[in-house]
Amino acid sequence: MQNSIRVGIAGYGNLGRGVETAIHKNPDMQLVGIFTRRSPSSVSPCFAETQVYSIDELLSDFSNKIDVLILCGGSKDDLPQQGPIFASQFNTVDSFDTHARIPEYFAAVDAPATAHQKTCLISIGWDPGMFSINRLLGEALLPDGETYTFWGKGLSQGHSDAIRRVAGVKAGVQYTIPSTDAIEQVRSGARPELATKDKHHRDCYVVLEDGANAATVENTIVTMPDYFADYNTTVNFISEETLQKDHQRMPHGGFVIRSGNTSAEQSQVMEFSLKLESNPEFTASVLVAYARACHRLNQSQQYGAKTAFDVAPALLSIKTSEQLRKELL
Amino acid sequence: MQNSIRVGIAGYGNLGRGVETAIHKNPDMQLVGIFTRRSPSSVSPCFAETQVYSIDELLSDFSNKIDVLILCGGSKDDLPQQGPIFASQFNTVDSFDTHARIPEYFAAVDAPATAHQKTCLISIGWDPGMFSINRLLGEALLPDGETYTFWGKGLSQGHSDAIRRVAGVKAGVQYTIPSTDAIEQVRSGARPELATKDKHHRDCYVVLEDGANAATVENTIVTMPDYFADYNTTVNFISEETLQKDHQRMPHGGFVIRSGNTSAEQSQVMEFSLKLESNPEFTASVLVAYARACHRLNQSQQYGAKTAFDVAPALLSIKTSEQLRKELL
Repeated sequence: MQNSIRVGIAGYGNLGRGVETAIHKNPDMQLVGIFTRRSPSSVSPCFAETQVYSIDELLSDFSNKIDVLILCGGSKDDLPQQGPIFASQFNTVDSFDTHARIPEYFAAVDAPATAHQKTCLISIGWDPGMFSINRLLGEALLPDGETYTFWGKGLSQGHSDAIRRVAGVKAGVQYTIPSTDAIEQVRSGARPELATKDKHHRDCYVVLEDGANAATVENTIVTMPDYFADYNTTVNFISEETLQKDHQRMPHGGFVIRSGNTSAEQSQVMEFSLKLESNPEFTASVLVAYARACHRLNQSQQYGAKTAFDVAPALLSIKTSEQLRKELL
Repeated sequence: MQNSIRVGIAGYGNLGRGVETAIHKNPDMQLVGIFTRRSPSSVSPCFAETQVYSIDELLSDFSNKIDVLILCGGSKDDLPQQGPIFASQFNTVDSFDTHARIPEYFAAVDAPATAHQKTCLISIGWDPGMFSINRLLGEALLPDGETYTFWGKGLSQGHSDAIRRVAGVKAGVQYTIPSTDAIEQVRSGARPELATKDKHHRDCYVVLEDGANAATVENTIVTMPDYFADYNTTVNFISEETLQKDHQRMPHGGFVIRSGNTSAEQSQVMEFSLKLESNPEFTASVLVAYARACHRLNQSQQYGAKTAFDVAPALLSIKTSEQLRKELL
């Protein structure tokens, strides 16, 4: 396809693989290659034709060959270091998701991007991302109201790691489950006060080491401060085979609900929800749609760091404005 | 409030009343007045301090006193005539909702707005509007998928009118009810083929004239072509008192569901829904938030006709970009 958007992938874990797959579902995009810190020959891409390069080649050889670079590293160590560096040579899209550090990360990316006339979309995905947009819409459209975010059913990496550190645990996973009662209460138009722990419970699936005591392990988990002590937590003991068979997926999702009043008598409820069989593949798919917007923003000289809040919906679509008005409005 | 956005309301029915109420919930807005075709002295606004003027005064006296004019007339007769006229002197927001005629209406408003450096947001509300945005997001984020729009539970004006034309019917209302089975099927990640009639059924509440035959009325309704014949329709006979007591509200809402695959194995479901106790009040509240965006677009010299697809979320919020990133992202 002529004039297709040339995309590069920096970092190749679950998210990078999702981006590689998503690009194939968008006919106006073309994958330049994967850029990895590993030895390129050790990487097996999902598609045989995908080129793999060392990430060291990016800055020296690819600045004129890539329209948008999608950063697929982690928010803790990779992005804070890579984001500002790549922002001086590439339009970028990333999924930086450490909510508390977004203002700081935004500033660190905005300066080089503005100085070099690049467009960098940060914190793209579903939360931050789609959920953020719905929190904003809820407030703007129903100023007299309350917003509720529920997460799950979803695999939580941090809580799964915490379980696996418990003595006697061989392997395990933890799912965050939104409380059906709390969701129904919010959907009814009531505006209850709910802490995070009132809105979720935690389900653990644990494989014991040989000879470990189940009651001791369970007690250690459910009383663990910060992670489980404040929550309604269930521990299920399963075999290693069951873990392999039933718990290898990475589902996630959740709900953003705005309950508000337009007048004293009339309550209104807006709700956005996601039910994801694969968290990284969906996040990747969002990143790819925003890569299209990133390219278009840069072409219309909108430089600097931006977020999902700054992107008009039409910029995300492969369709023209005329088509959108005719077919989707 | 200094520098508040000065808003006018053209047309004062249910929607205009909703806009008047909504402006009071947005502290950065100031209501200049209601402009009506009726005699101003015959109009009783919701708030005692609201000024009421003849619509004839708008073009002659108010072009420099209003930042955004919200058009609250109907899509059939009022807007096609008013929209293009007001677009040459005002920034406008309207809820034009005749889906098939949107391209034509867009063109009729775009020409005068562009020529006179005005910004005119057309077809704002929830469908078209919020539902349209979610249809666009669904396609853009999950290109391999299907979109399903369900409406209801909602009072349908057109179908209620049809019932009231049946011989023997004294009064009545009709609600469109989305099919729970169809919604569950779509939410499961399956991608069924569903016609509008498979997705909804119709509930009628009818007050009979004295001496009318219930069986005949019921049969006339459920076999009525176009309106009911293709649908699963239920007719309930009620007293006039019950109609007055239980059926005077204007609830509406619905669901936009996108079911798609990011890869052969992984399905993903996005869902947006509204549960509205008052359809006109919610639509009004959306119009007011978009009036803020309209004013800002005009100030940044984005002229011409635009739709919800062209408005970045941040433009809708009273908060600054810094606040939004810190509090909502």
